[in-house]
Amino acid sequence: MINYCEDGERIDTLTEKLKIIQSKNVFSFSMDAVLLAHFAYIPKNGIIVDLCSGNGVIPLLLSDKTNSKIYGVEIQEKLVDMAHRSVELNDLQTQIRIVHEDLINSPQILGKGTVDLVTVNPPYLEQNGQEKNSNQYIATARHEIMTDLSQVITTSSQLLKIGGRLSMIHRPSRLVDIIFLLRQVKLEPKKIRFVHPNKNKEANMVLIEAYKNGGKEVTLMSPLIIYDENGKYSEEVNNIYFGEKNE
Amino acid sequence: MINYCEDGERIDTLTEKLKIIQSKNVFSFSMDAVLLAHFAYIPKNGIIVDLCSGNGVIPLLLSDKTNSKIYGVEIQEKLVDMAHRSVELNDLQTQIRIVHEDLINSPQILGKGTVDLVTVNPPYLEQNGQEKNSNQYIATARHEIMTDLSQVITTSSQLLKIGGRLSMIHRPSRLVDIIFLLRQVKLEPKKIRFVHPNKNKEANMVLIEAYKNGGKEVTLMSPLIIYDENGKYSEEVNNIYFGEKNE
Repeated sequence: MINYCEDGERIDTLTEKLKIIQSKNVFSFSMDAVLLAHFAYIPKNGIIVDLCSGNGVIPLLLSDKTNSKIYGVEIQEKLVDMAHRSVELNDLQTQIRIVHEDLINSPQILGKGTVDLVTVNPPYLEQNGQEKNSNQYIATARHEIMTDLSQVITTSSQLLKIGGRLSMIHRPSRLVDIIFLLRQVKLEPKKIRFVHPNKNKEANMVLIEAYKNGGKEVTLMSPLIIYDENGKYSEEVNNIYFGEKNE
Repeated sequence: MINYCEDGERIDTLTEKLKIIQSKNVFSFSMDAVLLAHFAYIPKNGIIVDLCSGNGVIPLLLSDKTNSKIYGVEIQEKLVDMAHRSVELNDLQTQIRIVHEDLINSPQILGKGTVDLVTVNPPYLEQNGQEKNSNQYIATARHEIMTDLSQVITTSSQLLKIGGRLSMIHRPSRLVDIIFLLRQVKLEPKKIRFVHPNKNKEANMVLIEAYKNGGKEVTLMSPLIIYDENGKYSEEVNNIYFGEKNE
């Protein structure tokens, strides 16, 4: 039996079918990735690129729902290595390719204007914002150290074909920046959904879908509420995590 | 006894204290105005300008909560006349002044950079969009015939002092336009709240507060849900309409 794990790593169950290599000290996926994979409209056949791919959680989750070729672009070598091994662990080498690159080089490598869907769960926090985690892997995943919102959005626009879609999750506090930058590169927001910890709280995440060269009208979807009145996962979150798979 | 009403008009109760002249054929206020008046942060003393003021419903609602001088700017003469009479009916001539003008002239008349709060419930629909109501008053209140979003936002920015606030209600479908235009004239959105008919439906209204020359971070407030599971007004809407006055 092959040992896929290195020191400090573990294999987690991602879905009924899928497993993923994680590590407390390097990278573990969070709810953001699951919500984004659920939110994204996924082309049945085509090309999908996941930027800031981390340990490859989003390519893995999407692989279950599409025959598209999926590229995961990640700059941190350690995470690329984990993602590679997760792809092998699930025997998905023909569908998923993990690319060790700075995302700004990805249009050059993968082809400009060729992509049907870009997904991205980028670092949320500005470089000079909140105090950084002393762990470099975690700090890089959370803070705009190696990339920033403008690079992420510009690169996405370069990758996408006309009518192609960007699906992104981010912090609502950056909403104005996001919308302003998207329109500047002809990515027109078409669907926005806010995620609230409970129905009486401010949103703490936002899901945005934008179309390359899309028309100017956006739909504000029903709020996604994480916890119900009793502090348990809402019915919708339960369905996202445990039910309604492959819909 | 003075007769305040003309043909086809009626006097409605606006709050415990206030009455308003309305007309089915000319203008009756809707929930939008009530939500906006509730949402706006109201300076205790200062200058407030309500653009696209209609029959003056927002100046009347705000008068109850502030000592500020309130100007209502309205282009339609018939509505200005109704608003004038409502102000007199409530004996608020010293606090509220209704100005019969195209809003783009209001900075010239009222003073550039002098205003603490601008409120606006503008026509929602684009000139070439949905079919227009054959009634000219109603069509002008709903469609961008005599003004448009860009004029409303540019004028608001001209009116406001540094740190002054714009409070606006609009359709969520225009969100990207609104945000893009606001940032172009240095009105930075600080609070956004979406209004949903019920918790499972898309938003049909959005409330936005922007600060003149404000910092770049926005809060996405809890969703405002109009109807509960039983199709009755939610507790919050009940409080907005019937309780928690003068808070």
